Amino acid sequence: MSGVPILKLGDHLIVTLTPQLSDSQWDRLRDALLLRVGQVRATGAVIDVSAMEVMDSFATRTLGAIAQMMRLRGARCVVVGISPEVAYTMAQLGLRLQGTKTALDLEEGLALLKTQTDPFA
Amino acid sequence: MSGVPILKLGDHLIVTLTPQLSDSQWDRLRDALLLRVGQVRATGAVIDVSAMEVMDSFATRTLGAIAQMMRLRGARCVVVGISPEVAYTMAQLGLRLQGTKTALDLEEGLALLKTQTDPFA
Repeated sequence: MSGVPILKLGDHLIVTLTPQLSDSQWDRLRDALLLRVGQVRATGAVIDVSAMEVMDSFATRTLGAIAQMMRLRGARCVVVGISPEVAYTMAQLGLRLQGTKTALDLEEGLALLKTQTDPFA
Repeated sequence: MSGVPILKLGDHLIVTLTPQLSDSQWDRLRDALLLRVGQVRATGAVIDVSAMEVMDSFATRTLGAIAQMMRLRGARCVVVGISPEVAYTMAQLGLRLQGTKTALDLEEGLALLKTQTDPFA
């Protein structure tokens, strides 16, 4: 139990990250997400980071890795809810969310997952 | 900042509670929710408690109070994700979620909000 709830909505999973996840919580979240993708046969996931006040290099790298693993399991990831402050800091530090799309909020994220229907894009 | 993210999906808000909310976090969540209802003109809210391993009398009473206040602001509340263990404990302790509907999960909660269109029901 990572303490991070994973919700299901149609074909998609919704994850709202809590502030200050420990390294072991990140690990458990990754395991839970990868398992859940198979259980509910999800085709996409929206990861909301609006509660996070800091996105350091560990968080960024872990999110990117989770997105990559999810894609190997057949589900695409969209990271949403990056606040202006977090975006500024990430740009200053040169942190990139590799392999994931980003969108403004949950609605835009779900819309993005719905439009991206080409599996080989 | 209560640390509990409040997501918006169409006319509805989605709140996923984190385990072990402190009393002050409950207070801030209530304030944030009541404010947000007005900001986004929400007509309903789904509160997911699946991450909570314990629902004591304080949590139950606070949730009931939040639901009542939300209704006064024009938004109905559905509590979803009560686990079998939590349901058992709540029944044993005689705890009731007064004034709120409950549903199995996010999807059922949103469906319930959509069906309940009679404002005077």
